[in-house]
Amino acid sequence: MSQRNIYLQTLTVADALERGRTALERDRLVAAVTIQTHEAAGRVTAAPVYARVSSPPYHSAAMDGYAVRAEETFGAREETPLKLTPGRTCFPINTGQPLPDETNAVIKIEDIIQLPGGEIEIDAAAYPWMHVRRIGEDIVATELLLPQNHLLSPYDIGALLTAGVWELETWEEIRMTFIPTGDEVLDFTTRPTPAPGQVIESNSQIFCALARQWGAQPRRVSPVADDPDKLRAAVIAGLESDAHVVVVGAGSSAGSKDFTRRVFDELGQVLAHGLAISPGKPTLLAVARGKLLIGAPGFPGSAIVCFEEILAPLVAWLGRRQPPQRPRKTVRLSRKTPSRLGIEEILRLAVGTCGAQAIATPFGRGAGLLSTLIRAQALARIPAAGEGIEQGAEMEAELLVPESSLERVLLHVGSHDNTLDLLTNEMMGLTEPYRLVSTNVGSLGGLTALKNDAAMISGCHLFDPQTQDFNFPFLQRYLPDLAVTVVNLAIRHQGFIVAPGNPKGISSLADLARADVSFVNRQRGAGTRILLDHHLRQAGIAPQQIRGYQREEHTHMAVAVNVLSGASDCGLGILSAARALGLDFVPLAPERYDLVIPDSLLNDPRILTLLELLRTEAFQKKIQDLGGYETCLTGQIMTAGQGLGRE
Amino acid sequence: MSQRNIYLQTLTVADALERGRTALERDRLVAAVTIQTHEAAGRVTAAPVYARVSSPPYHSAAMDGYAVRAEETFGAREETPLKLTPGRTCFPINTGQPLPDETNAVIKIEDIIQLPGGEIEIDAAAYPWMHVRRIGEDIVATELLLPQNHLLSPYDIGALLTAGVWELETWEEIRMTFIPTGDEVLDFTTRPTPAPGQVIESNSQIFCALARQWGAQPRRVSPVADDPDKLRAAVIAGLESDAHVVVVGAGSSAGSKDFTRRVFDELGQVLAHGLAISPGKPTLLAVARGKLLIGAPGFPGSAIVCFEEILAPLVAWLGRRQPPQRPRKTVRLSRKTPSRLGIEEILRLAVGTCGAQAIATPFGRGAGLLSTLIRAQALARIPAAGEGIEQGAEMEAELLVPESSLERVLLHVGSHDNTLDLLTNEMMGLTEPYRLVSTNVGSLGGLTALKNDAAMISGCHLFDPQTQDFNFPFLQRYLPDLAVTVVNLAIRHQGFIVAPGNPKGISSLADLARADVSFVNRQRGAGTRILLDHHLRQAGIAPQQIRGYQREEHTHMAVAVNVLSGASDCGLGILSAARALGLDFVPLAPERYDLVIPDSLLNDPRILTLLELLRTEAFQKKIQDLGGYETCLTGQIMTAGQGLGRE
Repeated sequence: MSQRNIYLQTLTVADALERGRTALERDRLVAAVTIQTHEAAGRVTAAPVYARVSSPPYHSAAMDGYAVRAEETFGAREETPLKLTPGRTCFPINTGQPLPDETNAVIKIEDIIQLPGGEIEIDAAAYPWMHVRRIGEDIVATELLLPQNHLLSPYDIGALLTAGVWELETWEEIRMTFIPTGDEVLDFTTRPTPAPGQVIESNSQIFCALARQWGAQPRRVSPVADDPDKLRAAVIAGLESDAHVVVVGAGSSAGSKDFTRRVFDELGQVLAHGLAISPGKPTLLAVARGKLLIGAPGFPGSAIVCFEEILAPLVAWLGRRQPPQRPRKTVRLSRKTPSRLGIEEILRLAVGTCGAQAIATPFGRGAGLLSTLIRAQALARIPAAGEGIEQGAEMEAELLVPESSLERVLLHVGSHDNTLDLLTNEMMGLTEPYRLVSTNVGSLGGLTALKNDAAMISGCHLFDPQTQDFNFPFLQRYLPDLAVTVVNLAIRHQGFIVAPGNPKGISSLADLARADVSFVNRQRGAGTRILLDHHLRQAGIAPQQIRGYQREEHTHMAVAVNVLSGASDCGLGILSAARALGLDFVPLAPERYDLVIPDSLLNDPRILTLLELLRTEAFQKKIQDLGGYETCLTGQIMTAGQGLGRE
Repeated sequence: MSQRNIYLQTLTVADALERGRTALERDRLVAAVTIQTHEAAGRVTAAPVYARVSSPPYHSAAMDGYAVRAEETFGAREETPLKLTPGRTCFPINTGQPLPDETNAVIKIEDIIQLPGGEIEIDAAAYPWMHVRRIGEDIVATELLLPQNHLLSPYDIGALLTAGVWELETWEEIRMTFIPTGDEVLDFTTRPTPAPGQVIESNSQIFCALARQWGAQPRRVSPVADDPDKLRAAVIAGLESDAHVVVVGAGSSAGSKDFTRRVFDELGQVLAHGLAISPGKPTLLAVARGKLLIGAPGFPGSAIVCFEEILAPLVAWLGRRQPPQRPRKTVRLSRKTPSRLGIEEILRLAVGTCGAQAIATPFGRGAGLLSTLIRAQALARIPAAGEGIEQGAEMEAELLVPESSLERVLLHVGSHDNTLDLLTNEMMGLTEPYRLVSTNVGSLGGLTALKNDAAMISGCHLFDPQTQDFNFPFLQRYLPDLAVTVVNLAIRHQGFIVAPGNPKGISSLADLARADVSFVNRQRGAGTRILLDHHLRQAGIAPQQIRGYQREEHTHMAVAVNVLSGASDCGLGILSAARALGLDFVPLAPERYDLVIPDSLLNDPRILTLLELLRTEAFQKKIQDLGGYETCLTGQIMTAGQGLGRE
């Protein structure tokens, strides 16, 4: 086995940043450049800016009306109105026009009476400088308009041009080069189809999009293989370019093919390797030839933390900006969330508001997970000094979406179904869109979430063998104290998902016990799992007889992917999942997939909208088009003992 | 006098927006376009996006270490460690690599012991799928990745590429054409010097910079003269281009040269003319050929309100985005602020935090003012239904800067001096910059602000003729209950600012009473005004003898600009103001310009930093370089009766 790296002492993010700022000479690395004012919004001034001309540049009318000499109007009163002659004692004037010589006030058009002969009449005196914008009222030539290190807003651009400032000194945009690495990575620009052992490189594009948000200039080079010489050459090319920062993607960890540390050691000084943050630990920070070198982890979740926690603050500091900051909001954590002492942990949260209360349900925490990050409304941190957060505790979340949109989030926690994806998309198509955010934890997990106020609705398809009913017996058992309404989403068909052509000839439960058949199961508590266990008991088959019974997946689609890849021969799931991947399907049983809704939310506009949508023919047609569903109960309120509603 | 327009019934912003949304056919106006995924951050999906490939696309190692078959490790315990042979019963593996066939778990590198013979030893069993990322754990092929009408984040780009989605349907960016109008406007691209009656056109560039922030595509055409035919031609050209929105700058009001309304009436349907909002009233909203037409007011403050309150929400709606929203914060208004019933009024606020308290001091409210907008930290609204806000009332402000920066804002309310500009710029050059925000209300206004907790420091140069002392007698009178510390900023020279060469030969106070001399005064309460009045009394000159005594300006520079423009022959002010505009200066008297600081803030880091800066030689040198100042007291704590410290 070849040489592996050893992490330097693990550093906190704050310490790593401090080392970076100390090691870099910002004034030598980043230059001031002169740019045109009208292209300067979003840039940062490198020097104070003084006004060149005043605004207004002359005494001008602030209203449409007549310019007068105020002193000549002093007698005007309601009982003794005054006549003025246009062109002699008064002058028509529009807003912004210069005052004629010897006038010093403007009478509004609304305040005059037009006389038939062309004269005008006023019944109140003007005072000096009434409705006049005087020279320099807004901006005075030579005064300080903006100090150094000021981020230029659209308003600033207007003020600068108004003040005759055509160009100004700003700090350069920070230029950054990203070098993707890895024998296994495929260049997305070639639109590749990954073979086993290959992945599509996408971290570079997360990097580029974030960098643009920071006001930096990102660049990406083609992926480099896991070869220290090639990596060294790429890093040297980056250092010799005009880039201020070079980022190496992946290869910063402790694996046998992680050469970044070695290359950074050769070319400069490594400041940090290994951070006390999760995800994001395998981050590498170095300085070479006065430039910043970053080794970013390969997992996207870790890479993003490296970008946002380490790179963003340093890039902001180099560019004399404030580091990007998310709006904050206090949320109530709906689930106990343990964490490792000594490591700051970043959680991804689904957040929705109910009145003043913001409910936050944490997503799964894998460093490799992008799917949770694209659904999350917020992040939160568990400090290194703690061992986790208790259920119901309040914590400060960092919002990824505007705060006002949280009241439009509908939190679903429960079983996954493709009709929910359909619902998610439809609700975003409304004139006033709602965001249905799903956390897939199975039917029982959903009921627990309802009990803990962690969900607003819960998708549930729990079959009770004893009563032959769906969901209600479980509600009585798990949610005895919560008043809920049960609305059917659809009747769906569960069956065996098998490879195309059903090569193993699986046609009944008995086939699962065959030695040549491998199965993939759903997780404990999932309605599909309960359905399987019921049918196994009825057929007299013990779980131990089934190879792969212990192999658990959390969604129908994941079960289907297992079958598609050949990892398993079959699994229990829904037709739409099989069809989506071109697999075959052997029906086992129809079941009722319901939405459980706390009665307290029945008048919530999110719920009302959802129910209205469910009851439209158009939506039911879309469910039918998925295949494997019946919509005869869709949108209807269910009662205990109704079963499939067919008896 | 030519024809003037009449406003339609004044509408609320909400009603105007509703009319716009009703009149426009969004689905016909804005098309979906296919763009490359890696260029899609910040765009909005026009259709649901489904994953094409799964992630991970195969079972892969989640850690660096050894891949094993979990079942073969079940006997390993601390007391009975298990030997494994690389290449046979275990396989070295790096994070992200595919699991070798028949393995189903990874043992972390940290958990193995390397034996001398090349074998490894483990003292704990692995469980199936330990440290393994399973196929589709993150993303499952065919599942919904993103719904329609979703704003694409950098994270989304990563997820889309990972899922093999190379391109996707998004809504077009909203294209907008801005037509500046007006005989008096100068094209900024020609770098003009405005003659009297001319102004530099800059609203188009505020518009363009804002539009880019909204994710729209702005375009500006050359200014069009005040001529209905030319305006009509320009609007038609805009309607015939690919623009979705055409905005006409200025000319939307009721003046005789405001042709926009007439042109819009001819070409389409006017929906609103005149809004119940201030600034921003003269806004015009129309629809022609299915496109949106906007007539924006000419004053920058009004134009910005039109852009942000009317255009931004409609552009967001067209592009299926959320309208831009500013973070909100509750602030305490430090000054009673009246407002007109029936008109929603937008205030610009200087905001700084002291502990949990956010103090907001409103700036002047002229529609033409850009200088206050570039200094403001927040906006706030006085609702149409009210007649204003009481002093000390809490109100919700919309932040223009990140909330965290408010604790770095140092609110100065008081007399203006050029050394304050110097200080403002120096404080922004610190490693941890502070923002000194000034509201110029004169010395007495500053003391009132301190009394009302509206300021953190106050620049003051009030001379008391009776005691021959500066500031302290006024503190005793106006702030008897507030413990304050007085620190000198500089001794400065006040004198007559006169035209170059002093053509009127002004050399003493007596000259002010000459019939051929016009004066420009400072506002009541200003230290300079008090100084003048004192010297006039001593010289036995009555204010009525001075032509222009009633003409008040609020800053030294504004006084100087009056002299430069010939509007006045002379004014009392400081040397630096005269010198900055190339004017002459006739000294009258030195005076002490002090900073008054509440004792409760003496340990505030902002104040500590300011005092430290004042006491550096480098800063005092910069004051001296301005000319007209002495720094022998700069940074020193003053005591009552000290005068100029020269006796």
